[in-house]
Amino acid sequence: MEFKSKIKTIEWVDNYSKMVDQTVVPYEYKFVNITTGDDMFVAIRNMIVRGAPAIGIAGAHGVVLYAQELAERIDSREEFVSELVKKAEYMKTSRPTAVNLMWACEKQIEVIKNSKADIKGIIEELKQNGINLENEDIKINKKIGDYGSEIVPKGATILTHCNAGALATVGYGTALGVVRSAYAKDNTIQVFADETRPRQQGARITTFELAMDGIPVTLITDGMCSYFMNKGMIDMVVVGADRIAANGDTANKIGTYTVAIAAKYHNIPFYIAAPLSTIDTSIESGKEIPIEERSHEEVTHINGKRICAEGVNIINPGFDVTPHELIAGIITEKGILRPDYKKSIAQVFESNLAKA
Amino acid sequence: MEFKSKIKTIEWVDNYSKMVDQTVVPYEYKFVNITTGDDMFVAIRNMIVRGAPAIGIAGAHGVVLYAQELAERIDSREEFVSELVKKAEYMKTSRPTAVNLMWACEKQIEVIKNSKADIKGIIEELKQNGINLENEDIKINKKIGDYGSEIVPKGATILTHCNAGALATVGYGTALGVVRSAYAKDNTIQVFADETRPRQQGARITTFELAMDGIPVTLITDGMCSYFMNKGMIDMVVVGADRIAANGDTANKIGTYTVAIAAKYHNIPFYIAAPLSTIDTSIESGKEIPIEERSHEEVTHINGKRICAEGVNIINPGFDVTPHELIAGIITEKGILRPDYKKSIAQVFESNLAKA
Repeated sequence: MEFKSKIKTIEWVDNYSKMVDQTVVPYEYKFVNITTGDDMFVAIRNMIVRGAPAIGIAGAHGVVLYAQELAERIDSREEFVSELVKKAEYMKTSRPTAVNLMWACEKQIEVIKNSKADIKGIIEELKQNGINLENEDIKINKKIGDYGSEIVPKGATILTHCNAGALATVGYGTALGVVRSAYAKDNTIQVFADETRPRQQGARITTFELAMDGIPVTLITDGMCSYFMNKGMIDMVVVGADRIAANGDTANKIGTYTVAIAAKYHNIPFYIAAPLSTIDTSIESGKEIPIEERSHEEVTHINGKRICAEGVNIINPGFDVTPHELIAGIITEKGILRPDYKKSIAQVFESNLAKA
Repeated sequence: MEFKSKIKTIEWVDNYSKMVDQTVVPYEYKFVNITTGDDMFVAIRNMIVRGAPAIGIAGAHGVVLYAQELAERIDSREEFVSELVKKAEYMKTSRPTAVNLMWACEKQIEVIKNSKADIKGIIEELKQNGINLENEDIKINKKIGDYGSEIVPKGATILTHCNAGALATVGYGTALGVVRSAYAKDNTIQVFADETRPRQQGARITTFELAMDGIPVTLITDGMCSYFMNKGMIDMVVVGADRIAANGDTANKIGTYTVAIAAKYHNIPFYIAAPLSTIDTSIESGKEIPIEERSHEEVTHINGKRICAEGVNIINPGFDVTPHELIAGIITEKGILRPDYKKSIAQVFESNLAKA
């Protein structure tokens, strides 16, 4: 039985990218059309689109947009390719932590470099590749959901942090993909959603998309997780990821590491749900993952209103790294990776290469 | 060298109680005069005054206010005493978790029951007792500060949760009393303040009072604590308490338990700072501490604006219990209690009784 989600987060339409504006969810549910590469860069940086898999697709779309623009002023195929690769490299820098963005831009660079077509043909190939990545994303999420749903106990309460849902992907979701697939089998499961300060993706986005799909969700503040774990009210934790190192260390939204420590203390299994494109085998451990520092206003203000005294210092890391020893498993489209992650990650990439 | 704080949170003036309205800090710093017992009940319940020691004093003032009101309509001393004890018992129920409230109301009930005076005389004795409790609170906090400051390493960064500061007491503070005393000796120390959702006492009140007193403070969101602990940026944690059981289990603002677990994971000492009046030797463990459930709006709304989807469930416990095994010491006005708390708490109460 497949769960039908109502949400499509990002989609290529004719010659532009159409996406849910996630800065206004849940107050509004509206779509914006991104028509230039620079606008896509800003949309990613300002989190109009967010969630590691979704910004991967957004980056891929952004490369198509740049290609369309360059084609209007450049006739030389050679110059076009050279300029476009530069733009694709630039698009990768719109946010530093989620590796899916680099991965998807790199996929487009491969298309550019491998193409035998003329400028118009390259653009068509890039569009098609973007659409393929979109479709693949949903398929991958459903596979993640299927694998993950097998380990969700009957009637479980699943705690999640931030939003690794349909709105963090093209649709369906990774952590919430597991929830959707589990709910399709057993509608007595439910979700506890961390608010996820500072940007409140849990409160704003996770509650919104689960309510929209009719899955029971309880909103808690970030500090409350241990309270409910101690009461025996949480059966498992499932979160998404922005980048996973070769040893399993996982960068995800700030606050994830705290939840993982609390889960360990209470012997509650803590899972990551993410596509293989989130795994960066080029880095050995989480120490090498760049952590984005975001604006102070995200901490000092909520809905435009200051919430603290003047004269206070702020440090606002957007992500933290959960060390592999706190992670019970990494749920991917190829199955659930288990410790020792150095081995299991290497194995899944080897077998992927063998098939490719 | 003594640290001079600018803050006086609550004070008896002539025939009413004057207090900082903490619901509007840091947007405004204004005082309200509470002139009836029922208004005091509401002021405590709605957290115009908050912080375990401060609501103790507020409760004591509330009993005086009820006494003044009863004296206007009751002539019989016997009836007055009987009605007033009922009112004092009622005042205890304005909030359930912080035991200082019950302790202070009980102190007033002792005055009522032991008095040899007439109605007017009883009221004077209650007023005087209230003022004594006020003065004693500041003295106790300074002693807590002195003891606590001895264990603050040079140049330390102290993480705190919620507000156990001047604004949680009559003045000076418990956890922030430790900070003030340490800062008077070494002005290179600094504070990291957890925002403390849902009511944001850390963001609103702790940053305000430390900025007012010129002590460096960095505001972080609740989920960030582990990130900074992992970076080696936190040297110790000091928080207040709402009730401490005979075995050292400590109820404090929701989220404290999560911080304590994170501190343990990083081998960072986690301290409670509280007067002996916060210790409830009548209960064996934290399991017996009643946890207040507060309104859903505290979680779903910030500054009057909804932050989540409709149709979401809410559970809003105001406090959690940190088990004694996570606590490195309890800093009191009689010194720092260390594990085994069952023994050290029993000893300090025995020696207190011996002196009384």
